[in-house]
Amino acid sequence: MTQHALQAARRLAPRFAARAAEHDRDGSFPVEDFRDLREAGLFGLMVPTALGGAGATFAEYAAVATELARGNGATALVFNMHASVTGALGAVTEDLAEALGVPDEALAARDRLLTAAAQGAWYAVAMSERGAGARLSQLSTSYEPVDGGWHLKGSKTFCSGAGHADGYLVAARSAADQSVVSQFLVPAGEGLTVEPTWDSLGMRATSSHDLHLDVTVPADRLLGGVEGLALVIAQLMPHWLVASYAAVYVGVARAAVDAAAEHLNARNLAHLPAVRSRLGRADAAVAAAQLVVAEAARRVDEAPGDAETNRWVWRAKLLAGTTAADVAASVLEAAGTSATRRGHPLERLYRDARCGSLHPATSDVCADWLGVAALGGDPDRDATVPRW
Amino acid sequence: MTQHALQAARRLAPRFAARAAEHDRDGSFPVEDFRDLREAGLFGLMVPTALGGAGATFAEYAAVATELARGNGATALVFNMHASVTGALGAVTEDLAEALGVPDEALAARDRLLTAAAQGAWYAVAMSERGAGARLSQLSTSYEPVDGGWHLKGSKTFCSGAGHADGYLVAARSAADQSVVSQFLVPAGEGLTVEPTWDSLGMRATSSHDLHLDVTVPADRLLGGVEGLALVIAQLMPHWLVASYAAVYVGVARAAVDAAAEHLNARNLAHLPAVRSRLGRADAAVAAAQLVVAEAARRVDEAPGDAETNRWVWRAKLLAGTTAADVAASVLEAAGTSATRRGHPLERLYRDARCGSLHPATSDVCADWLGVAALGGDPDRDATVPRW
Amino acid sequence: MTQHALQAARRLAPRFAARAAEHDRDGSFPVEDFRDLREAGLFGLMVPTALGGAGATFAEYAAVATELARGNGATALVFNMHASVTGALGAVTEDLAEALGVPDEALAARDRLLTAAAQGAWYAVAMSERGAGARLSQLSTSYEPVDGGWHLKGSKTFCSGAGHADGYLVAARSAADQSVVSQFLVPAGEGLTVEPTWDSLGMRATSSHDLHLDVTVPADRLLGGVEGLALVIAQLMPHWLVASYAAVYVGVARAAVDAAAEHLNARNLAHLPAVRSRLGRADAAVAAAQLVVAEAARRVDEAPGDAETNRWVWRAKLLAGTTAADVAASVLEAAGTSATRRGHPLERLYRDARCGSLHPATSDVCADWLGVAALGGDPDRDATVPRW
Amino acid sequence: MTQHALQAARRLAPRFAARAAEHDRDGSFPVEDFRDLREAGLFGLMVPTALGGAGATFAEYAAVATELARGNGATALVFNMHASVTGALGAVTEDLAEALGVPDEALAARDRLLTAAAQGAWYAVAMSERGAGARLSQLSTSYEPVDGGWHLKGSKTFCSGAGHADGYLVAARSAADQSVVSQFLVPAGEGLTVEPTWDSLGMRATSSHDLHLDVTVPADRLLGGVEGLALVIAQLMPHWLVASYAAVYVGVARAAVDAAAEHLNARNLAHLPAVRSRLGRADAAVAAAQLVVAEAARRVDEAPGDAETNRWVWRAKLLAGTTAADVAASVLEAAGTSATRRGHPLERLYRDARCGSLHPATSDVCADWLGVAALGGDPDRDATVPRW
Repeated sequence: MTQHALQAARRLAPRFAARAAEHDRDGSFPVEDFRDLREAGLFGLMVPTALGGAGATFAEYAAVATELARGNGATALVFNMHASVTGALGAVTEDLAEALGVPDEALAARDRLLTAAAQGAWYAVAMSERGAGARLSQLSTSYEPVDGGWHLKGSKTFCSGAGHADGYLVAARSAADQSVVSQFLVPAGEGLTVEPTWDSLGMRATSSHDLHLDVTVPADRLLGGVEGLALVIAQLMPHWLVASYAAVYVGVARAAVDAAAEHLNARNLAHLPAVRSRLGRADAAVAAAQLVVAEAARRVDEAPGDAETNRWVWRAKLLAGTTAADVAASVLEAAGTSATRRGHPLERLYRDARCGSLHPATSDVCADWLGVAALGGDPDRDATVPRW
Repeated sequence: MTQHALQAARRLAPRFAARAAEHDRDGSFPVEDFRDLREAGLFGLMVPTALGGAGATFAEYAAVATELARGNGATALVFNMHASVTGALGAVTEDLAEALGVPDEALAARDRLLTAAAQGAWYAVAMSERGAGARLSQLSTSYEPVDGGWHLKGSKTFCSGAGHADGYLVAARSAADQSVVSQFLVPAGEGLTVEPTWDSLGMRATSSHDLHLDVTVPADRLLGGVEGLALVIAQLMPHWLVASYAAVYVGVARAAVDAAAEHLNARNLAHLPAVRSRLGRADAAVAAAQLVVAEAARRVDEAPGDAETNRWVWRAKLLAGTTAADVAASVLEAAGTSATRRGHPLERLYRDARCGSLHPATSDVCADWLGVAALGGDPDRDATVPRW
Repeated sequence: MTQHALQAARRLAPRFAARAAEHDRDGSFPVEDFRDLREAGLFGLMVPTALGGAGATFAEYAAVATELARGNGATALVFNMHASVTGALGAVTEDLAEALGVPDEALAARDRLLTAAAQGAWYAVAMSERGAGARLSQLSTSYEPVDGGWHLKGSKTFCSGAGHADGYLVAARSAADQSVVSQFLVPAGEGLTVEPTWDSLGMRATSSHDLHLDVTVPADRLLGGVEGLALVIAQLMPHWLVASYAAVYVGVARAAVDAAAEHLNARNLAHLPAVRSRLGRADAAVAAAQLVVAEAARRVDEAPGDAETNRWVWRAKLLAGTTAADVAASVLEAAGTSATRRGHPLERLYRDARCGSLHPATSDVCADWLGVAALGGDPDRDATVPRW
Repeated sequence: MTQHALQAARRLAPRFAARAAEHDRDGSFPVEDFRDLREAGLFGLMVPTALGGAGATFAEYAAVATELARGNGATALVFNMHASVTGALGAVTEDLAEALGVPDEALAARDRLLTAAAQGAWYAVAMSERGAGARLSQLSTSYEPVDGGWHLKGSKTFCSGAGHADGYLVAARSAADQSVVSQFLVPAGEGLTVEPTWDSLGMRATSSHDLHLDVTVPADRLLGGVEGLALVIAQLMPHWLVASYAAVYVGVARAAVDAAAEHLNARNLAHLPAVRSRLGRADAAVAAAQLVVAEAARRVDEAPGDAETNRWVWRAKLLAGTTAADVAASVLEAAGTSATRRGHPLERLYRDARCGSLHPATSDVCADWLGVAALGGDPDRDATVPRW
């Protein structure tokens, strides 16, 4: 079934690529890409098979993400948020649920969300806030119990897919007790307002706008069914974000090599030694980064959270980010001025590729953590000033 | 007087910088920057003092170009074309004119053009054509003698400042004899049509659009007064283009370091070791590139066209281009995601900086020529396939 | 059984490391390392199980080579030659033998050589000649039939392990017909003279001296039993050389990271941010190179000689060579002056690591071939001037 | 006169180069190089003309050092120590001497030392100690007044030229008051013992051995004539060490480019595109580093100790060190395996070149300081953990 997903991703990528220039230019959301993803059943990729999904492993997901990103990195980044939500929800086993005191009806609610995803719904993440970043302890969005559910009020930033998702994973603090942070799956609709703030160097089509919430949700939209579980779910997600960013940027880097090759062949420049040297070194670097991402993903499946797994996740993030930026810059130089015209794939990929190292954990942070680990230290304890 | 020019450039740069985001966004020409340049008398920078100009050396020009580029690289690039035209015209000595058979009235016409520049006129260059690039031997724009002057017909591309200059240096071939290539200084006005084709990754404000010509010019607008001198004038210009591109990109690179420092201080991130390391290495690289450009320019003044001068010109072009791109990429990474928002100086500088290596002679071509010279060969004879 | 080999390699590596400084200093052959290899049964690693060997795949071999190289890269390089000989001999299937017209007694002779290896013999390669390099078509060593066998006469260079091996794979041309090139497995003993010419920057303990031959060997020492098969066997070996060089240099690179970590911890310098950054980036680069080597080796097993397999082999060679040199240079800088003292592991590793890119195919050649392939061309047909 | 010195350096360099391989191999001191330096009058380079010297500026010295290093970097490094001593002694003006309370007889003694240098004496520096490094506050070498002078006792390390100099600049602490650190110019002879500890990756011919002192010196060998002036003199020297190291490594880098060009031409490999690209980029990098060193030196003459001067000194150190290592590694790769044979200039230069970044202030430290300065901070106050 997941082989099917990979084939679907490969089939869709050229369609995404054909639309990418327009969405990059306008900063518009790739609505048709998401329709394609829905029709291909990819929203159920991380949903357990028992609930109608494909039950993909993280490694399978990473491979799919890379293929999608070869079409449009921005589409793959937004899809990544959905995969993170469904993947983290699906990762809550019955044992874990019992240990956390999750009531049965909460598991049932969780299953309804996953089933909906398998049937075509997709979810975005509304976690970050201005000033707080993604640190749960500093959120200002709050919630309180009301008749028939919960009322949430606050503002989120960097919400990829804002205004287009069927639901939003929202973290908020209890108005009654500031130390309690909970997560809700807020359905799209009234009470949510998108403020179009996203206007970025690259990955422009993610529509990572601000999202203002003043909304009441049914009781069963509190994830886990009991308040205060946000940190637990958050801890299930980090490898998702870090390692899956990496998968996306490998796709972007490979797309850059392919676009450069096409451009150079069309202009009969493939015989130039400097061109060959640039493409050859770029090809090797991308191939290496792809293997590292695959290895990290494999280990996430086998031993999530292990110290050695984390090292591979950081290696993947570091290498994917730096490789994408370096490769795109080099092959653009090989391709020449004619490839810098807006609308040319390399022009967009050069901008998209620069963003990978900047997602948390940044390349410099990953290098620091890896250095601590290589020196036998514990990155959790010994890291230099972290950036996130 | 040229010290005055340098001070003027430093005074204007912040004003250019304040307008740069808008022109970058819209791809609009920095009209007010050029008004400022006119009012500061900088259009006369390369005009001999006897004709009312500042009589600057090439080294002095390079220093001015770098300062202007710290404000807006695109403005500096367009100014560079004007400086190239006036510099090359001014470089035709009486001895050279006599050797070429330039009649006295042509020298008088040349002096009028330079005097006009000293009084506030500026000239653009309309040399390249689709397909032909800048190779004079393959131009399709043609001219023929008509009553009262010359008629020119054809289309040019990459004409920086198209639609805004007071005159255009145009190369064309004689309709009567295809082997004769001449240059004209075509005044702005009827007969020139700008087709807005320029929409680039970086240096967006240069308005390097297509220019269509179907125009009659007075007899004295044939440069040199006799047909067929285009190659001679062209040979006076190359160091202009190559070395002065380099001066511009040093300014862009320095602007990136400065913008990153400002951004990082504003966000209290100056204490991060990785940030310091990136800025320190960037600072050193830019300082080195600036010295190389100054040395190349100094040698262009002392011994233009000498083999050793040419090596310095290529070194300057190579290092300025690669340094600008590398430095902008690194300091943007130091600055983080918040600096990738459109309108942020670093977002623009990252794109502008990538263009330097791509101007002819590209970095790869310069490296090849320098390698041939380091190996004791003659780049004119032994170079690998050239890109231009 | 091959898991046993990997464990043996890991057990031996520290013993090799303890002896490495002495052999590096003197350029002496690591005789005790080879005794250890014999005792661990590793000379039979590539010998089919039916003949008493471990029947390792190429992927298994590559893993072993990397582990050995973590102890001493030079030892691993010499072992690599033996593995190449036994691996290529073992790869001649009965079908291939039949197609080539290999008589049964030649297969029996081959089996004796492999059985001897499984029992503790090891073989070196004497292929290159001054002037000819490794090009079979330009060899000057010749052979002719004599009573009871063949007489060989000539001089070989770069013969790793010269004077220590139990046999030498020697290529020679027929005195009767210069176009016929055959290979012999010449036993150690009279008729072979070692001229100690090897005195190199790095990998000093390989004893890759000159070997002079004036020797008669029994008839069954002609490999394949018929003359003229040298090219066929040679074609079975290239991935051996290229890909297994790569495995060795990954081990060298990892050893450098480990030695730097030990040195820095001993000097309490692990807290320095620049040190961490260098080790972190080095760690990631080595991990990536190791995965690429493993992937290349896996594909060599699955589809030897395929175009895609070859690309992976070149990627492995390119990345292992450049990574080893870059990593060793960077971590030596992290470790500081105290690590540049002769006898310090990093001092040796810095020199050893530089050699990887220089083995054929060099990094620049691999980059060219990879570039041709990325551009859709055929490296066999379209490559720029090759270096070998 | 100093132009004469530069010419002498250029004349001597090939002679040094011809002897370099032998001294590198044996770690022997280049006695004949120093005889050449004496005969050329170069020991008086930094001695004021009034005392018979050449009265060179620091910029002139830097140019000489680079030329000497093109012959043998190790010779240039040892010469650098002598130039530092004579340069610092010569830099003590009468005003400064008066402000420090230096008695007239001490100035007379100083003049005698400088006059001796002009006549052919040369001085080494014995400052560092195991454990203390070059930190004056942690020295364990002590002195006490005795009949007819001072008695010094202790051990020094990294004393370049140990056993060959005519005198040694020695820092020691007063036995009576540990807080008082003084400097002495100890004449060669009895009481000094050289322990041959120097056996390094590169710069092997500096003979930077340990020096044990148990010696009595005349009263006038206390520099400055009053105790406790060591820190003052030390503060006059840092730019000497940092900036003049840089000058040496530029020479080493240029020598590497030249040696590679000679090697490649001899082997008819100059036509290979990858070779040209490597040499071209190397040539540009070395040219840039040389200009930065010259600029730093010029500013040291004009405004020693200024914040902006210091930035140039750090830029020079950073770029010379990194450029030498990078360039030597790249051109060795261009030259190929045949250049890795011991005795080949590139083999030695590759090792010598790696040492530049490791001399204090290391490249990483310079980058940190430059980053602090670029961010508007004060490196003296804000630097991250320093390495020295």
